Amino acid sequence: MNDPRGIKMQHALMGSADETEASFYEAMQHGDIDKMMAVWGDEDEIACVHPGGPRVVGTVAVRAAFEAVFANGPVHVEIAHVRRLDTPHCAIHHVTEKVQMMSDKGLQTAFVMVTNVYLRTPLGWRMVLHHASSGMAQDLPDISEPRSTLH
Amino acid sequence: MNDPRGIKMQHALMGSADETEASFYEAMQHGDIDKMMAVWGDEDEIACVHPGGPRVVGTVAVRAAFEAVFANGPVHVEIAHVRRLDTPHCAIHHVTEKVQMMSDKGLQTAFVMVTNVYLRTPLGWRMVLHHASSGMAQDLPDISEPRSTLH
Repeated sequence: MNDPRGIKMQHALMGSADETEASFYEAMQHGDIDKMMAVWGDEDEIACVHPGGPRVVGTVAVRAAFEAVFANGPVHVEIAHVRRLDTPHCAIHHVTEKVQMMSDKGLQTAFVMVTNVYLRTPLGWRMVLHHASSGMAQDLPDISEPRSTLH
Repeated sequence: MNDPRGIKMQHALMGSADETEASFYEAMQHGDIDKMMAVWGDEDEIACVHPGGPRVVGTVAVRAAFEAVFANGPVHVEIAHVRRLDTPHCAIHHVTEKVQMMSDKGLQTAFVMVTNVYLRTPLGWRMVLHHASSGMAQDLPDISEPRSTLH
């Protein structure tokens, strides 16, 4: 996440979904709205679901939603458990975000299950979906084999 | 959702993402695990997040997760607010599920924000992602224009 290419990438073509994803999380960590919006595609139906929030659709509304988030400052987020379903035209990434925030009770950590979807465009790979489930206090491992408890 | 083609579609090519989505919800409504799994692609990284649950990845685990859901019988689900970002190779659908279930407190209704992603394959459009946020007691409208409360 401490990608030294970060600053340059804001204006560069985003040559892979991974680069676009790195840029997205750098924008979160810096609370940088312009860098954030450079990550997103310009389709009418780009969509964002913040934890527990409504669905936010379209560039204007997505920008407003991130401005609201960044009004509280940068977001202390790290990502883990990245899984990728990459195709030539579309990349679906499954990410667990570890988000830390100060509250009345001190430093709190939440683990947020996220799907990020990217499309390949003439301007590089652009985000078209960021869907975050509500945060959990624990980091749930992925289930990739059936567990006996599921039966 | 009461699509008369339902039975035939189980074995037919799924010619559009909408048809595949209809088949997915019919499988839910009937608690039909074979119909459900016919909807999914066979990529290693197909993934499913049920409300409040962990990420479930791969055919075997996804099947086990739906078997666990269907062990309680069919799912009383209707969908609304379908929004689509359709491309030639990939379709990203934003759906609100209205789920009704009986509990100790009587019939309860939850509204679940869902992203479904489909890829076009030689066998038709197949689901590769179903990500459901935790259910809410109210149906939150999408935000597609900035609201003054966001500023």
